[in-house]
Amino acid sequence: MSSRATTGSAGVVIDGDVHNALPDLDRFIPAVWAGGWRTASVPTSHNYANPRGGVARKDVTPPNGGAPASDPYFLISDHLDPYGIDYAILTGPHLIHLGTDLDYQNMMARAMNECTAATWLTISDRFRGSILVNLDDPHAAAREIRHWASDKRFVQVIAAAATRRPIGQREFWPIFEACSETGLPLAVHPGTEGAGTAFPPTPMGWPSRYMEWHNILPIGYMAQINSLVTEGAFEHFPSLRFIAIEGGTAWLPHLMWRMNKNYKALRDTTPWLTRLPSEYILDHVRLTTQPIEEPRRPEELTQILAMIEAERTLMFSSDYPHWDYDNANLILTAIDSSTRARIMGETAAELYGIIRMPLPEDLPAHLPATDEPVEQPMTEAVPVE
Amino acid sequence: MSSRATTGSAGVVIDGDVHNALPDLDRFIPAVWAGGWRTASVPTSHNYANPRGGVARKDVTPPNGGAPASDPYFLISDHLDPYGIDYAILTGPHLIHLGTDLDYQNMMARAMNECTAATWLTISDRFRGSILVNLDDPHAAAREIRHWASDKRFVQVIAAAATRRPIGQREFWPIFEACSETGLPLAVHPGTEGAGTAFPPTPMGWPSRYMEWHNILPIGYMAQINSLVTEGAFEHFPSLRFIAIEGGTAWLPHLMWRMNKNYKALRDTTPWLTRLPSEYILDHVRLTTQPIEEPRRPEELTQILAMIEAERTLMFSSDYPHWDYDNANLILTAIDSSTRARIMGETAAELYGIIRMPLPEDLPAHLPATDEPVEQPMTEAVPVE
Repeated sequence: MSSRATTGSAGVVIDGDVHNALPDLDRFIPAVWAGGWRTASVPTSHNYANPRGGVARKDVTPPNGGAPASDPYFLISDHLDPYGIDYAILTGPHLIHLGTDLDYQNMMARAMNECTAATWLTISDRFRGSILVNLDDPHAAAREIRHWASDKRFVQVIAAAATRRPIGQREFWPIFEACSETGLPLAVHPGTEGAGTAFPPTPMGWPSRYMEWHNILPIGYMAQINSLVTEGAFEHFPSLRFIAIEGGTAWLPHLMWRMNKNYKALRDTTPWLTRLPSEYILDHVRLTTQPIEEPRRPEELTQILAMIEAERTLMFSSDYPHWDYDNANLILTAIDSSTRARIMGETAAELYGIIRMPLPEDLPAHLPATDEPVEQPMTEAVPVE
Repeated sequence: MSSRATTGSAGVVIDGDVHNALPDLDRFIPAVWAGGWRTASVPTSHNYANPRGGVARKDVTPPNGGAPASDPYFLISDHLDPYGIDYAILTGPHLIHLGTDLDYQNMMARAMNECTAATWLTISDRFRGSILVNLDDPHAAAREIRHWASDKRFVQVIAAAATRRPIGQREFWPIFEACSETGLPLAVHPGTEGAGTAFPPTPMGWPSRYMEWHNILPIGYMAQINSLVTEGAFEHFPSLRFIAIEGGTAWLPHLMWRMNKNYKALRDTTPWLTRLPSEYILDHVRLTTQPIEEPRRPEELTQILAMIEAERTLMFSSDYPHWDYDNANLILTAIDSSTRARIMGETAAELYGIIRMPLPEDLPAHLPATDEPVEQPMTEAVPVE
């Protein structure tokens, strides 16, 4: 644990996107859903299959043969310790897709939060949780936030990014109110764009294949940030922080500049704004690094990082154990050390209120390989015909 | 005409987006549509009203009191001559919106092309036309291109950018085939995103107001370029050039970098590609300047221009006479003179095959003010109840 030998947040490394699996999730699904929820007519994916598969295949399977990132101890010994990562912000295995059944969506959010609390946050202080909410039912999402807010192991709210109205619009304000009341930032993660009852993932309809879909998904983030700013969400909720996970960085200068230019001419349609759009963005929006852009000329990325004031807007993430996860030791090595330290963890430590503490941990390296049956569901399954 | 005193294309200035009005359009509407076409149930606009109005209001009204950019002579004396602009690429007043009636859309394209040819391209060699086509009916669009191709006053094909499938998909290939056969580049112009039967202008639905809509419309261009590259359009049609008018520039580095990174991992789903996505973009895609981004630190725009190799990808445009049109003398003054010369006209001259020639022009400064009735329609109107 050499990486955790000092206290304080100087030099802390925080991974903002670690996809812990929830192999015990069935135990947290209420009986009424238990028999049929996996096969029910609810969207559980977008329309695109990654030819590489969703997870890195070579080196992330735990010794017990379980799913990647299903073994908390192995996640520490395989990912956190080798790369000097002090804390992992757990972002979970699943997304709440836009669908027709709000009750199903709300139930899944609660079940996944309970499973994360019971099977991950109890293992190590190095895991910090995300309260998953269903953006499609903002009042239920606000209740979910308040339900967990007193559990300080959860450090943010998280949701799948897709919505059917831009997220700054007032139907979502109950969520922002709950975030503000509890002091929790709101993060979004891609994956539901164009899935279920969402609109197509581009204004021009559906891309053909996974690569094309993955190339273009940052446009949804641009739309959400544009909406949050112009609708006045950051003016009305001055403590609100919005984290755009896994959507890239290099598009932000364009968005800020275009919004600023238009604001100067058209601001009488948004009289509630008192500052330039870029000022709201730099103060309230945070991006995560993975998948970090890799231009042929590395100095071009350094120029972009200066444009977005990366020392306060950008936070490291690995996306472990997914197919394209980033190695903490290899990213952003060309930038100055103080900016890199901000990105690798100091900004996140401030945002999440994490203070690095030396902990007397004595954890196994992984779960034992076992043939024991997994624990039975708490409630009996009700078959769905 | 001092700006046109020399021949050749060195130092030529070409404005790639001049919105000539067509006050005589009614004359070119067939009788079956003439009585009701303006009020028929076809989309003629998006859902957003610009609080500034669509056109600059102070100084673009011609002396006869007509609509801005309705007087060819005044356009020369008010816009081209004062700013040293040699040629104007006319992009027209109207857009073909996605709707339900392909015949109406196709008729409007033909009528506007006929009106442009008869009332603008006859006035001065300094006007070059765009063949407007209806992307919603690709075979009809291909016929429209071939209909006009022998008229060398038309130098490009133009269409409203919105489609219901990404434009690289094979249903659009008849258009690319016609462009390749005739040597004409294909330009798109914003304005129909989210209008008529188009999908919402963002993956997250409809923005609330014009400013927010205008801020975000470049995402549609990102989707179209992503599609053109990944579907192999530039591989299959190696002479095809795609011009993204009025959509900004600073988002292109991100798109190229993200596409390149994904291509390296996922290219087995697009086996027809033989080069990096960025190489197709730099060779085949052209952007226009207006509205040029204006960061607080001008050197940041210079850095972006280097990333997109602006000396070969970027072309000057003013968007005259619209509300936010750019002054040719004030944009991009901080960059080196050879790059600026490429952007201001040399790249466009090569793309459009324009060679600057000294012409013995003796044109009036504007149309006479007159109370004479406008010319009557060629065909009698058929009222629509």
